[in-house]
Amino acid sequence: MSKQKPENRAEKIKQQSFDKLVTLGNKIYKQLQEEKYPEFDMPSRTSSNIYYDEKTRQFSLGKKKIRRSSRNVRHLKPFLQTMFVAMFAARDLLEPGRTSTLRDLYYSSESAMAKMFKNQSESDNIITDVESIIGMAREDFNIFPDARSTIYGDLTISFKDKKTGNKREINLTFNPDGQTIGPTMVRSDFVKTSAKKVICIESGGMFQRLIEEDADEKFDAILVHLAGQAPRGTRRIIRRLNEEMGLPVYAFVDGDPWGIHIYNVIAAGSASAAHLSGLTTPDAVWMGLTATDITRYELPTDQFTKGDTTRTVQLLRDPRYQKPYLQEELKKFLKLKRKAEQQSLTSKSLTFVVDEYLPAKFKEIEKLQKAGKI
Amino acid sequence: MSKQKPENRAEKIKQQSFDKLVTLGNKIYKQLQEEKYPEFDMPSRTSSNIYYDEKTRQFSLGKKKIRRSSRNVRHLKPFLQTMFVAMFAARDLLEPGRTSTLRDLYYSSESAMAKMFKNQSESDNIITDVESIIGMAREDFNIFPDARSTIYGDLTISFKDKKTGNKREINLTFNPDGQTIGPTMVRSDFVKTSAKKVICIESGGMFQRLIEEDADEKFDAILVHLAGQAPRGTRRIIRRLNEEMGLPVYAFVDGDPWGIHIYNVIAAGSASAAHLSGLTTPDAVWMGLTATDITRYELPTDQFTKGDTTRTVQLLRDPRYQKPYLQEELKKFLKLKRKAEQQSLTSKSLTFVVDEYLPAKFKEIEKLQKAGKI
Repeated sequence: MSKQKPENRAEKIKQQSFDKLVTLGNKIYKQLQEEKYPEFDMPSRTSSNIYYDEKTRQFSLGKKKIRRSSRNVRHLKPFLQTMFVAMFAARDLLEPGRTSTLRDLYYSSESAMAKMFKNQSESDNIITDVESIIGMAREDFNIFPDARSTIYGDLTISFKDKKTGNKREINLTFNPDGQTIGPTMVRSDFVKTSAKKVICIESGGMFQRLIEEDADEKFDAILVHLAGQAPRGTRRIIRRLNEEMGLPVYAFVDGDPWGIHIYNVIAAGSASAAHLSGLTTPDAVWMGLTATDITRYELPTDQFTKGDTTRTVQLLRDPRYQKPYLQEELKKFLKLKRKAEQQSLTSKSLTFVVDEYLPAKFKEIEKLQKAGKI
Repeated sequence: MSKQKPENRAEKIKQQSFDKLVTLGNKIYKQLQEEKYPEFDMPSRTSSNIYYDEKTRQFSLGKKKIRRSSRNVRHLKPFLQTMFVAMFAARDLLEPGRTSTLRDLYYSSESAMAKMFKNQSESDNIITDVESIIGMAREDFNIFPDARSTIYGDLTISFKDKKTGNKREINLTFNPDGQTIGPTMVRSDFVKTSAKKVICIESGGMFQRLIEEDADEKFDAILVHLAGQAPRGTRRIIRRLNEEMGLPVYAFVDGDPWGIHIYNVIAAGSASAAHLSGLTTPDAVWMGLTATDITRYELPTDQFTKGDTTRTVQLLRDPRYQKPYLQEELKKFLKLKRKAEQQSLTSKSLTFVVDEYLPAKFKEIEKLQKAGKI
């Protein structure tokens, strides 16, 4: 089954971000012309204004706003910093079609004027402010993190080739080592796929194992290497595969509360990105390793630390973990007090994961879904 | 200029490793048949047997051997562990054409018999033993680390497509996010390149900047992202680009003793890989950031820590750092007591690194080389 979607996504988003940044700038200029102290409003990101939205099934911001005003001397520095980031994004990145890392932006400010940011965490924070003001993610105005994850499977993407200026298509099975999820991939259009699902994989070793054993063909799957907590660009790709291509998403992670949390950030987002939409995949399914997997297959395990136990108790109470399936497994983990890495499946054999584990798992999930437990 | 090299490198190396492992196994069997306690010799890897070889310009092992004998009860466990790794590599990896991560191997041992290794560092260590016994790197018998770095530039590689069984070629400019250096890349044949040099880059941000600014075309370069200390697979790729394709290699790293050390591992190797050849590029040139760059361009810097100072003093005395150019710069660093990241060049402008820094740097290096200082 081949699926199509409208083209030129990257150009549209670029234009949107640019327009919103220009609108912000014009508003400030207008106030100056009217001889007012310029000011702007932005959504408050304090924890009291972050809630889990049952409708969109992700973390979101409430209605509380804060005003940053140049009249207030304590606001002057962050006011200026916000204007600098907005200007840099519009003039130095979007306009000439450049990208920047978070670190590049921090250093770029040093050329503009004397030491504008104390450190990178200060500039990162102002970038988040700009995201929440214009309601778009930093990737939309060409600021990318260093972190990279990898993707492999039958998906054809299309992007504008910077060297020729022409549209170019690549298929993500091109290199058996997988394709890096960088700025090009994040901004690309999805052209077509024969895949029927997405498997997100925590560790690089398991990702490589699945490529090697042709899991993409055996399970009609696109494989995404998360490399621990998935970078935001990767979470957006996963969401788009779900939304645009209609593919169900499975998270295959280590069997411990931290693996479950990695799944959960894909499904429901993180509090620190509550001001953004388009990064979550609410219907993503946690595959395991489950506590049941650990006992059923007698996998090599490690003892729960005190931190593991505390975390599991927290998850049990979390509104995002109230499905019967998750509750059951979390309770089993607490009883078992043991955890296992996904690569521990290798203790059966190198091919056990594709020959036995995944086929059984997909059947089990289908059954649980029919029973309404997932 | 297009360069060619003989094909089927991967197949040849696979056969070599396999033969050497079988020879080791046969030796043990023969001793058993002769009713002797089986034993084998291996090069000692203690620091007293590691020296810097002026001829090959890399760390190497001396002639000291150690004997691992099943007659000695303290040797029994490592003897068995060595045999397990050798068997696993030959029978479970090379024979069926599979690869394994270091972690997979650790877990695989659990299926074979009760808990053969206490932890992964024990199994990693035995893998190094097998490397030194057969004189080949673990990648040659299909064991890869998780760590990945990335490469971009006009290089066409060729490998056997596992799905079709046919030879397939890919060019590494295919994806503007760069190509992952994984098992396929490491085992590939190099077909042709128009590049005239290799630039190895420490940080992901700078790597992405150089791709975006077409540094590969502007400087006829293949760009390699090291991601900090270069993984061994990446060091081997760099060596092969130098040796097989005749390309000079430049290391573009942070301006501090740790950046210089990253360069040095590429040039002269690490003590922990002294039992291997084919990983070093003795003629690789350290580009900077130099101490001179920091003052010349008035880059944003951080104060040297005590550790930075100690390390710089160590490097000054190290036999691998006796070239006049390195000595001068190390002394300048000690006087300056300040360091700078390569991304600090962004403080001039996003394009400063390609418009000014690199062109000036290549001229400077040429001059220093003519003066015999590098």
